[in-house]
Amino acid sequence: MNGLKNQILQAVHTDLADIEGALTANLTTEVNFVSKVAGHILFSGGKRLRPLLMVLCARMCGYRGDYAATFSIIFEYLHVATLLHDDLVDDAQKRRGQPAAHTVWGRESAVLTGDFLLARALSIASRTNDMRIIRSIAEITENMAQGEIHQIQKKGDITLSESEYRDVIRRKTAVLFQGACRVSAFLANAPESMEKALADYGYHLGMAFQMADDLLDYTQDSQTLGKICGADLREGKLTLPVIHALNSASPIDRSAMIQIILNPSFSEDEFQHLVALLDQYGSITYTHHCADVHILAAKTAMMSFNDSPSRDILLKIADYAVKRKN
Amino acid sequence: MNGLKNQILQAVHTDLADIEGALTANLTTEVNFVSKVAGHILFSGGKRLRPLLMVLCARMCGYRGDYAATFSIIFEYLHVATLLHDDLVDDAQKRRGQPAAHTVWGRESAVLTGDFLLARALSIASRTNDMRIIRSIAEITENMAQGEIHQIQKKGDITLSESEYRDVIRRKTAVLFQGACRVSAFLANAPESMEKALADYGYHLGMAFQMADDLLDYTQDSQTLGKICGADLREGKLTLPVIHALNSASPIDRSAMIQIILNPSFSEDEFQHLVALLDQYGSITYTHHCADVHILAAKTAMMSFNDSPSRDILLKIADYAVKRKN
Repeated sequence: MNGLKNQILQAVHTDLADIEGALTANLTTEVNFVSKVAGHILFSGGKRLRPLLMVLCARMCGYRGDYAATFSIIFEYLHVATLLHDDLVDDAQKRRGQPAAHTVWGRESAVLTGDFLLARALSIASRTNDMRIIRSIAEITENMAQGEIHQIQKKGDITLSESEYRDVIRRKTAVLFQGACRVSAFLANAPESMEKALADYGYHLGMAFQMADDLLDYTQDSQTLGKICGADLREGKLTLPVIHALNSASPIDRSAMIQIILNPSFSEDEFQHLVALLDQYGSITYTHHCADVHILAAKTAMMSFNDSPSRDILLKIADYAVKRKN
Repeated sequence: MNGLKNQILQAVHTDLADIEGALTANLTTEVNFVSKVAGHILFSGGKRLRPLLMVLCARMCGYRGDYAATFSIIFEYLHVATLLHDDLVDDAQKRRGQPAAHTVWGRESAVLTGDFLLARALSIASRTNDMRIIRSIAEITENMAQGEIHQIQKKGDITLSESEYRDVIRRKTAVLFQGACRVSAFLANAPESMEKALADYGYHLGMAFQMADDLLDYTQDSQTLGKICGADLREGKLTLPVIHALNSASPIDRSAMIQIILNPSFSEDEFQHLVALLDQYGSITYTHHCADVHILAAKTAMMSFNDSPSRDILLKIADYAVKRKN
């Protein structure tokens, strides 16, 4: 597992350095405070997965220009903007092991710095002179907002179906991954078949990534995770493991689960009891399986490209997405 | 005064109807709740001034296409998105005489619906296929976020200078007016000289509009205003009348003013005492004068255009901007 992570990191070392450089270089503002708040979350150890996907996909499509790293950060800015807004929405206290921005600088600053990052992402995108890229950004942002709102509406709703869950994670996560990959094809002026294959890869990777993320809440300790365990459930967010278990459990176990779910201040023991039930009803395994199915589809989409070092890393990233521990 | 308003409304009756139609037609979403929250603030009696400016300016530039109303709503969506985020920032309880969106549906929905409207504005803008328009939107959004953050940082800061105040209102208000006017020139493929004249008109109109708005807090009763009187000051927002008075008052009056300003729960009597001091030191008159200077500049910018019914209305709007009562 760590071997896989190291292989990826070694191969993309220079790209990650370029991305970091671009993230800093484009964060200049006339109001210094904005850079400070944005920098707090932007430079707190993010994986840079979304920009990295764009850089690798662009290279695989034959892009040889100098601006892949610059344009790739559009997707990190968009991502961080939504983190700022979402943490506030969830009133999350921690993010990436650090206090969440709104707990340090107030809700106001978090909202407005998010807005600023959205705007800056758009400003960078406009330099591509490619309206398809602008359209992608509009589509991504609309979807992310709608997905997040849908999730809020369904908070604590134990009737949330698996298909509703899939629709939520598609909007709030997969669409951004898909966009980062698809836009690289626009940048490289690649044929439509490549654009479609990359969109498929990004979509399935994003779906699997979010499912794996939702699993971590039930399988990892708080320290590894960098945020409080069972946090999703405390916020009333029902994710696939719980949805599956609710649909599979005996009436007695189902009642026990619902009692825990509907009480946001459940104890550690109650949480462990719930995790045991998820395990018993095969819900952890089922969620792993669903994520694996998406990873297989992501890798299949890659098969339409010739073998190359970039493709190799993109395949490894797909494997890593469902095996990571934080 | 009412005569002026009626003259404007009569002349733009059809345009306003087209704008309303476009605002509704473009608010379709897959998550119905989003339309509902957006609609609450969007259809609560806004003046539609920003889209109207775009429609009129485009016509004055010779635009004869069918899409002025559609593209003009970009600026109402942007405006409403910032209202949603700002009301939350200020924790304002009322907006346009209605309960503010976040007090009805929660902060989360207000933030995310704002994000959605920003994205939808961008999506509509992308249909223009004009990257200059996209760049304008990025610039507007960056500026608005920075202006608002700057204002928050300076909350309750009695050393705020007039030039800082001018910078804040430029970013948070004038840049959007300027953008609405400038973009019409892009849409009409007008020469650069027209673009610059329209940008000047919009900028000065926006500055005057905000100064007039800031005055209302000290000159109008709550009922006419549709929100609580003295609200700016209770939030710690120092605007031009107060800044001017602090710089002009005797040490004793200055202390009295500072005492009121620094106590957000000042009484109605204290507020009336402050208003009397603003009056005594000519600060109301001074702010009116500053707004008038901008209106003169706005109207001067219009003089580079030939006489036309659209220009006539734009001139009347300039007069109205500083004479309105809400």
